[in-house]
Amino acid sequence: MQSQSQDSAPGPAQLIALDWGSTRLRAYLLGAGGAVLATQHSEAGASVLRGEAAFAAALAALVGGWRAAQPGLPLLASGMVGSQHGWREAPYVACPADTQALARHTLALEAGLHIVPGLRHEGTQPDVMRGEETQIVGALAQHPELAASACLVLPGTHSKWARVQGGRITGFATHMTGELYALLRQHSVLARLMPPEGDSAASAAAPAAAQAFERGVQAARQEGGLAHQLFAVRTLGLFRQLAPEALADYLSGLLIGHEIASELRTGTPAQRALVGEPALCARYAQALACFGQPAPLQLPHTAPAGLWLLAQQAGLLATAQAA
Amino acid sequence: MQSQSQDSAPGPAQLIALDWGSTRLRAYLLGAGGAVLATQHSEAGASVLRGEAAFAAALAALVGGWRAAQPGLPLLASGMVGSQHGWREAPYVACPADTQALARHTLALEAGLHIVPGLRHEGTQPDVMRGEETQIVGALAQHPELAASACLVLPGTHSKWARVQGGRITGFATHMTGELYALLRQHSVLARLMPPEGDSAASAAAPAAAQAFERGVQAARQEGGLAHQLFAVRTLGLFRQLAPEALADYLSGLLIGHEIASELRTGTPAQRALVGEPALCARYAQALACFGQPAPLQLPHTAPAGLWLLAQQAGLLATAQAA
Repeated sequence: MQSQSQDSAPGPAQLIALDWGSTRLRAYLLGAGGAVLATQHSEAGASVLRGEAAFAAALAALVGGWRAAQPGLPLLASGMVGSQHGWREAPYVACPADTQALARHTLALEAGLHIVPGLRHEGTQPDVMRGEETQIVGALAQHPELAASACLVLPGTHSKWARVQGGRITGFATHMTGELYALLRQHSVLARLMPPEGDSAASAAAPAAAQAFERGVQAARQEGGLAHQLFAVRTLGLFRQLAPEALADYLSGLLIGHEIASELRTGTPAQRALVGEPALCARYAQALACFGQPAPLQLPHTAPAGLWLLAQQAGLLATAQAA
Repeated sequence: MQSQSQDSAPGPAQLIALDWGSTRLRAYLLGAGGAVLATQHSEAGASVLRGEAAFAAALAALVGGWRAAQPGLPLLASGMVGSQHGWREAPYVACPADTQALARHTLALEAGLHIVPGLRHEGTQPDVMRGEETQIVGALAQHPELAASACLVLPGTHSKWARVQGGRITGFATHMTGELYALLRQHSVLARLMPPEGDSAASAAAPAAAQAFERGVQAARQEGGLAHQLFAVRTLGLFRQLAPEALADYLSGLLIGHEIASELRTGTPAQRALVGEPALCARYAQALACFGQPAPLQLPHTAPAGLWLLAQQAGLLATAQAA
């Protein structure tokens, strides 16, 4: 359940940064300037833990060694660990919000451990994020040129499209694209003609898969509505216009295409960056190209940089070390 | 597993009409002019049966008594019983198609038993129906004024929007609205804030439920995309802007609203009818009213009338009796 990138105790650590989502806990031991000295992760996501003791135990199991080796190290965590059903609730900060606002509202939990608050936005409907705000802070720290005006896209189970203006996150929208894909892939009538899920991963990089994915994206650009177009995953399989192995890629293209189509209706940003897991970001980049959009920046693993900057601004780092 | 509307053997029967879908088998004993003399149903849907023997046994279990009482009665079945995974495949008839074309292509299965073929349509994507074509034939038989030009809407797991012109079904589109509702209601993050499913049925008729449903329909009329707007089911619950009991109705309104919005983009028909289960048709009528559409006809239980007319045109009825 745990993995560790380096066995020996690392050198002059300054912060334990925790990216603590629903399904995973990722820990980073950060040194001077936010350099990653070591990483560890476990499956102790917030969704499988109940009660403070369970969270405390999961944390001790993963980073107890780091803490014992260097007592007094500060810890900063982001993600679902701060939700209603997390370790303790860190109330949402309202948009527009900048790094300082997030840092000011970190929640002190126990000696040395703090939680980054999530963000909320009131658009045509209320919207929330937890964890992505920290990835955005990290992306802006790594690419300060984005701070003036950009759209940051964080693909995932619940994809986020965030607008950044003048260094502040001014608003964002969630799309349940990844969750819809998983539901339809596993439980719907569309799954019946597809090979079992393990098999399709092998073909994900194949040209046929990319082609089926793009065909799905192109379908999403037509009129008809998502609930209608989804049915084509069944009929294209039924009439052998798509191979069984290609149906999941077509479904993925259809869903990501609809997400992009609705966001493009809100306008074209000055700059766009994809933030998150590289393979998924590559799919979004491919889909954006189908819409004739310029190639976006692709920024993997920005959470540690975000946690480092937020820890600095929250005054969690010893002054001499943080310099 | 079975129910029967009348215990005594009925009089001068002329046809056993079978509405044999994925999850249910409904049998109607029809007399002169298609009058329903008796009905029976079981849970022996086509999706739970494998192999010809299983279908034959399910049929015998339900209507064996009727057949024994009046040997030689013809039987006509519509629905998933004629699919690839049904009793035997009755190949799709292509649109445009009228009642004669469907009658001509009924598949003879065994002594006296025939299956109505499904319909296929090639629009921007291939589309199929099985069972709904028979409901449409029945609706047109009951309301001949629709035959000139109408849109027939058949809500359900896979809703169908069929266009009828000059007595022919010229095309149709499927929307996976009911299946998406069930998936999201049962398996998604949106279900977490909702009361268990049994509880919400009690409140379905309440004014609060109708209000939440309409709020969902109105949301669907906004820009933003379905996968984005779905997330509001979570956030409106999270911020207590909707009561837990109202969330499923809001979700239903959102999905049905999106279905209607995409169909209205294709134009307004001369006449519109809702065909199917009365409570679900009432919801669609309510949603159509939110879009400012005129009140549609509502036609429940048209399958027996469709099977009667198709049996007549296929020459299955004894000539003297069919008159």
